[in-house]
Amino acid sequence: MRIALPLAALFLTAAFVAHAGDGRIDYDHQDQWQSAHDMAQSPIDIVTHDAVSARDDEPQALVFEHTHAPMEAVDNGHAVEVETHSTQATIRGRHFTLAQFHFHAASEHTLDGKHYPLEGHYVFKAQDGRLAVVGVMYEAGKPNAQAQAVLDNLAHAKHAPEEVDIDALLPANRGYYHYLGSLTTPPLTENVEWYVLPTPVAMSRRQIDAFLAHYRHNNRNVQPLNGRPLVHSEG
Amino acid sequence: MRIALPLAALFLTAAFVAHAGDGRIDYDHQDQWQSAHDMAQSPIDIVTHDAVSARDDEPQALVFEHTHAPMEAVDNGHAVEVETHSTQATIRGRHFTLAQFHFHAASEHTLDGKHYPLEGHYVFKAQDGRLAVVGVMYEAGKPNAQAQAVLDNLAHAKHAPEEVDIDALLPANRGYYHYLGSLTTPPLTENVEWYVLPTPVAMSRRQIDAFLAHYRHNNRNVQPLNGRPLVHSEG
Repeated sequence: MRIALPLAALFLTAAFVAHAGDGRIDYDHQDQWQSAHDMAQSPIDIVTHDAVSARDDEPQALVFEHTHAPMEAVDNGHAVEVETHSTQATIRGRHFTLAQFHFHAASEHTLDGKHYPLEGHYVFKAQDGRLAVVGVMYEAGKPNAQAQAVLDNLAHAKHAPEEVDIDALLPANRGYYHYLGSLTTPPLTENVEWYVLPTPVAMSRRQIDAFLAHYRHNNRNVQPLNGRPLVHSEG
Repeated sequence: MRIALPLAALFLTAAFVAHAGDGRIDYDHQDQWQSAHDMAQSPIDIVTHDAVSARDDEPQALVFEHTHAPMEAVDNGHAVEVETHSTQATIRGRHFTLAQFHFHAASEHTLDGKHYPLEGHYVFKAQDGRLAVVGVMYEAGKPNAQAQAVLDNLAHAKHAPEEVDIDALLPANRGYYHYLGSLTTPPLTENVEWYVLPTPVAMSRRQIDAFLAHYRHNNRNVQPLNGRPLVHSEG
């Protein structure tokens, strides 16, 4: 039984409001029905040993295409964000288009409680409005030429690159943890598919510090899982 | 402009609460953030000329397998429901398992404002918890042997069938209208993929009346679309 107490309380409240005394749903007072709220929020702590393996009878891969793309890096008021729209993805068999990507410091998701200094969110949108966000962890290591391209574009540096190769900002290992969650900034809309890649990507300490010079505390606290399935795929 | 006043009010409230005076999101008072609520509810009126055609570069079909399945028909307190779990579906490239199906009278969805006497909801669940509901319209016509099987099983009739062939309860034409919505009974949870099949399936007037003898007003009112995409596929 993985449903936490607040969820049970919510269901009881909803049941109380929605049902007439005889236990039936009161269709004559639908305006008094309440809906389940805020039970599927992001980010979460990814407890890796609680994850179930992805089914092997359906497509599981994340496939990115047209990753070399025009970009415009901006400070959106709460994150460094890159506007770029030509990258396409097939995510578990369905088609999505990249809308933008942006960075949180420290990471919003944690892996078995561990934060990384920076997390990138690659926000994809499907035709039906479904959002899928690919979360990438960054750690200090070798310099990353594409991270530098983003920083130079943001700074309007002389001869700054106007294109980015997103492929180099993603890890080679495309294994992921998948769950259903929400946007991590208001309006915190649910209906978001999350794919958090546990293999970190390196940037230099100097590059990480350049992102942190813009925002170093734009990470939402982790939210309760509330019984949602957490699925692990080797990619 | 189809966004109703409450949405504008909600966004204004959220913006007011979530941002510090300088327009930034206040990460030090995350407990005061509010999430968008109840903006993606079901059912809806399907305005067919507002639908966009499904993309042709991704799988669009609804494919049902193992449709001949054991069943137990029950009165769940607000609908006639059939418990049956062996039917599988590939829905737009992803795998789902049938959890149950049940009936609403009159139909909950409307097609260009038109209600049908009965709507069946075939509730599928994916490994990640995602729900997909296939909505089927029923109208008076020839008797339907599988509808009779459900009614006989529900009535514990002598020699009542214990299996149902769901294929005969679905239209041969698998075209659909797709949008992202919610459960139509409390807790009204969002994150539900809807596939409403506009081609009605026939039952006899007597069979429809047998369903209506249980419930003839268990349909939620149509909800505002609030700008959600409505996608049409020929199936």
